[in-house]
Amino acid sequence: MKLDKLVGERFKEKPSDCVIESHALMVRGGYIKDVAKGIYSQYTPLKRICQKIEAILREEMDAIDGQEVLFPVSLPASLWDESGRYESVGSELLRFSDRNGTKMVMGMTHEEAAVHLVRDYAKSYNNYPFMIYQIQTKFRDEARPRAGLIRVREFTMKDAYSFHTSQEDLERYYQICYDAYNRIFARAGIPEVVTVASDSGMMGGSLAHEYMLLTPVGEDSIAICDACDYRSNMEAAESIIENEKDASYEELTKVYTPDIHTIEEICDFLHSPLEKSCKAVVYQKNMTDDYVVVFIRGDLDINETKLTNYLGEAIHPAVITPECGLHAGYIGPVGLHVEGDFTVVYDRSLEGTNNLSCGANEEEYHYTGLCMERDVKDASYVDVAKIIEGGICPKCGQKKIHLSRGIEVGNIFQLGTKYTKSMNMQYLDAEGNSHYPIMGCYGIGVGRLAASVCEAHHDEYGPIWPISIAPWQVHLCCLRSDDAESKTYADQLYDALKKERIEVIYDDRNVRPGVMFSDADLLGVPIRLVVSPRNMKESVVELSSRDKSVQEKVALDEVVPTVKALIDRMMQEINEKC
Amino acid sequence: MKLDKLVGERFKEKPSDCVIESHALMVRGGYIKDVAKGIYSQYTPLKRICQKIEAILREEMDAIDGQEVLFPVSLPASLWDESGRYESVGSELLRFSDRNGTKMVMGMTHEEAAVHLVRDYAKSYNNYPFMIYQIQTKFRDEARPRAGLIRVREFTMKDAYSFHTSQEDLERYYQICYDAYNRIFARAGIPEVVTVASDSGMMGGSLAHEYMLLTPVGEDSIAICDACDYRSNMEAAESIIENEKDASYEELTKVYTPDIHTIEEICDFLHSPLEKSCKAVVYQKNMTDDYVVVFIRGDLDINETKLTNYLGEAIHPAVITPECGLHAGYIGPVGLHVEGDFTVVYDRSLEGTNNLSCGANEEEYHYTGLCMERDVKDASYVDVAKIIEGGICPKCGQKKIHLSRGIEVGNIFQLGTKYTKSMNMQYLDAEGNSHYPIMGCYGIGVGRLAASVCEAHHDEYGPIWPISIAPWQVHLCCLRSDDAESKTYADQLYDALKKERIEVIYDDRNVRPGVMFSDADLLGVPIRLVVSPRNMKESVVELSSRDKSVQEKVALDEVVPTVKALIDRMMQEINEKC
Repeated sequence: MKLDKLVGERFKEKPSDCVIESHALMVRGGYIKDVAKGIYSQYTPLKRICQKIEAILREEMDAIDGQEVLFPVSLPASLWDESGRYESVGSELLRFSDRNGTKMVMGMTHEEAAVHLVRDYAKSYNNYPFMIYQIQTKFRDEARPRAGLIRVREFTMKDAYSFHTSQEDLERYYQICYDAYNRIFARAGIPEVVTVASDSGMMGGSLAHEYMLLTPVGEDSIAICDACDYRSNMEAAESIIENEKDASYEELTKVYTPDIHTIEEICDFLHSPLEKSCKAVVYQKNMTDDYVVVFIRGDLDINETKLTNYLGEAIHPAVITPECGLHAGYIGPVGLHVEGDFTVVYDRSLEGTNNLSCGANEEEYHYTGLCMERDVKDASYVDVAKIIEGGICPKCGQKKIHLSRGIEVGNIFQLGTKYTKSMNMQYLDAEGNSHYPIMGCYGIGVGRLAASVCEAHHDEYGPIWPISIAPWQVHLCCLRSDDAESKTYADQLYDALKKERIEVIYDDRNVRPGVMFSDADLLGVPIRLVVSPRNMKESVVELSSRDKSVQEKVALDEVVPTVKALIDRMMQEINEKC
Repeated sequence: MKLDKLVGERFKEKPSDCVIESHALMVRGGYIKDVAKGIYSQYTPLKRICQKIEAILREEMDAIDGQEVLFPVSLPASLWDESGRYESVGSELLRFSDRNGTKMVMGMTHEEAAVHLVRDYAKSYNNYPFMIYQIQTKFRDEARPRAGLIRVREFTMKDAYSFHTSQEDLERYYQICYDAYNRIFARAGIPEVVTVASDSGMMGGSLAHEYMLLTPVGEDSIAICDACDYRSNMEAAESIIENEKDASYEELTKVYTPDIHTIEEICDFLHSPLEKSCKAVVYQKNMTDDYVVVFIRGDLDINETKLTNYLGEAIHPAVITPECGLHAGYIGPVGLHVEGDFTVVYDRSLEGTNNLSCGANEEEYHYTGLCMERDVKDASYVDVAKIIEGGICPKCGQKKIHLSRGIEVGNIFQLGTKYTKSMNMQYLDAEGNSHYPIMGCYGIGVGRLAASVCEAHHDEYGPIWPISIAPWQVHLCCLRSDDAESKTYADQLYDALKKERIEVIYDDRNVRPGVMFSDADLLGVPIRLVVSPRNMKESVVELSSRDKSVQEKVALDEVVPTVKALIDRMMQEINEKC
């Protein structure tokens, strides 16, 4: 198409509300326009990119026997009641009522809809395994949408659901999906995406992986072992601590500590390291407001995901009231008293330790000399600590963990029978016995993937789109459309390229070369052709690639075959990484 | 793909809640599953059909210089406030609040979003004309969803918006769109679709057309002239009446008419035809509840769309209270009195008539001998009558109107400046003067189109899909998969067809031929191949078309080229109708 009619503005100034480059470039390049907080319209360049990503998704899903279906965006609340998620999911689930007052939700994932679609059909073991997927709009009412297309409220997602008659079969298929996902990201131009073990969160189930594009601007924290292949989302990473015990045991001694409220202050006051303290962190359960007191070594932090999983219910930071019996700043494991039901959790980092400082459960007093075995006899220990930089790798045992940041571009989950059981989907095996099928689910956000590719591949002037998902393959610039010879040749070249089914954006505007090139940089098309009076004199066209790896002059009658060959080579380079 | 893993049930019994055939066949054939009232999930066969329709839509929109974009499903209410539609549209517009209490709507059309996307961009006349379109989910909270995919609440729609600097340019482009729409319906296999003039309703603007598939099960009424090419939606059709006047004028006479309340009863009582009566129909304005009294010839009905357009505001049937001054059953134009503000409308069917009966605005009394000119001197007449079967054609003037029913499969509107003005979208012309651009909009519902094709082309056993949108091109049946020779050949044929990129659904289940064929009928694939032991003995495959026009035996090594030729021929037959 011709650039002069391409709808959308392109400009130089970085918008002040853009915290990451992909967001800024997508606004500056005429890819997106915000309609509401975390809700965007897409202009044609992004729509074309997304369609190419969707085509890759379809090919790879079809190749692993996926059947494309379509679920509704709007779903009756009754369906989410069946799985229990209408109650259990927070306000990111958008709930509304229709004109008749029927309660509805906007689909944020479609496990319930998937089970609903197949539970009457898949009643015999013969029907299994199968996988269904859709590419559809989803709505997730995020509290803090940010970073352009990285965290939005409305987005297009490919979500797939597989159904199996055994855990083994799920695991077999899970591996097939795992590989397909790696191919998808490589084909989209980011083969550098890594998988990390992840927490399955509100989805239910056990094993799960996230696909991460490592980048400092990512929202997720990832623990990576430099010695082995261990990689995990912080949320799911096991924290292993070599607990040390002093040879000499101090006495448990109450110390007057006025105006000291934090663990850092007490350690300062006692001139002892943070590692020799027992910190209390207090939560409340969302459903009952019952208190949960967690004790952990002073230098470590709580991993709330692991804590939630251990408790089996949602929690929030506690509001400590005068009546509850807790003394904020002075909470410790000895003599702890809380009004009503409460839970105490001890992190593994405290197991077998001694000579710790801790709160004395009395205003203005702490203990020193705490010995867990001696003073807190009934404690049992669980892992609720965040893994730390330089920590022990849960896989190889070496102290080689480093923490990195990443954007989650996809995820796969082994769901188990959470949904089939709660929604009563059953099949008969060969012997006529009833079972609940075992599910897996597999998601990729289309817009977030596009933004991630931009984040991974751009320079200060614009995105550098891989040929496989670029909005066009070739950007043709006619530098002086007022020069008859240049214009005539450029017009012919445009037609010749289109005839070969090459996707061309053609800029024949009467504008300065600077404007033309900065627009081309913002559109990030991989191959650029420049027709100009000077080039015409030499009977050449300048051909260059957006990533600057190619820069050459091509004889006029060689342009089309040269471009075709370059497109093929670029595609081949991408496919080699699959 | 292989049929034995195709997700979805197929069965024989017509579901009791299906009032039209396309609905029943889509449920019976495993195309749709209802999730809520008017909300469906789509199984793979329908998803494939819709994707083919969407591909046709994209090709035709791109061919007329459309740029594909994507608007959000969820839109802020503030955007609809700008156009005034947040208030003016009824409860079919789904309104909700997000987690922060911000008012939102689910997009049911996207005029506001379209203006929002381009109003900062298109500030110079140089940018015009242009057209943007999307294919996206819409939600319309219909009071009475019905007939399967014909009237749903959630649906996928192609909606396009064009922007122009003059009415002439809009009209030029409107014609281009008009032609593209005809091509779309022909390519989808229903070239019989006709255009009718329509009312532009809540969209604003003036000229509009609907594309109608004529069928007795359609929801819309259409007036068609048998003598010329006039076709109009009933709602928009002008009613032309040859008013006749008796030579002798009767006196206006009050008659005692106890227990007579309807115009039929009074005409019966007086032994005079309905045509010689003046009927009153009373409405109230939605905003103020002010009364609107409409007088019309007794044998005619009110066209409420034309009445609403004339009044410029929404109305509802009146509740006649004792205080309002109206005497239900006895309302007439002479001595009419209503408390408060009220409007009186006289339909053109009364103009110049005499010797009519009418209410006397007094309980139990009517008048006879009403002469409009003499007794209702100040009346001015407008057309608010429904056109009638056998009525006068507004175009050629012959009494050749017949009424028909149809499904609206698409519509095009000249919107004018309704949205650009209210949302303050302006551009500068060459002289530097500001103007509001003029818009057109153009819609096609994807699922409704699929259902309409099914409605137009089916038999009692299933849909007969045109090759251009069929879920697969070839349905391959291996009648006896337990016969080694048949199975081996069928497997090879399946591979050979796939290799030629022919879309095949392959049924190699070990089921009775009856089951296999009834499933094939329900899937409605245009070309069927049957491999069986009996055929193998003759070294042939049975080839037939779903519409029964082809039925032949083909030598084994001729099957692939024969099928390819048949696909080409079928495609050509469709394209010839474009």
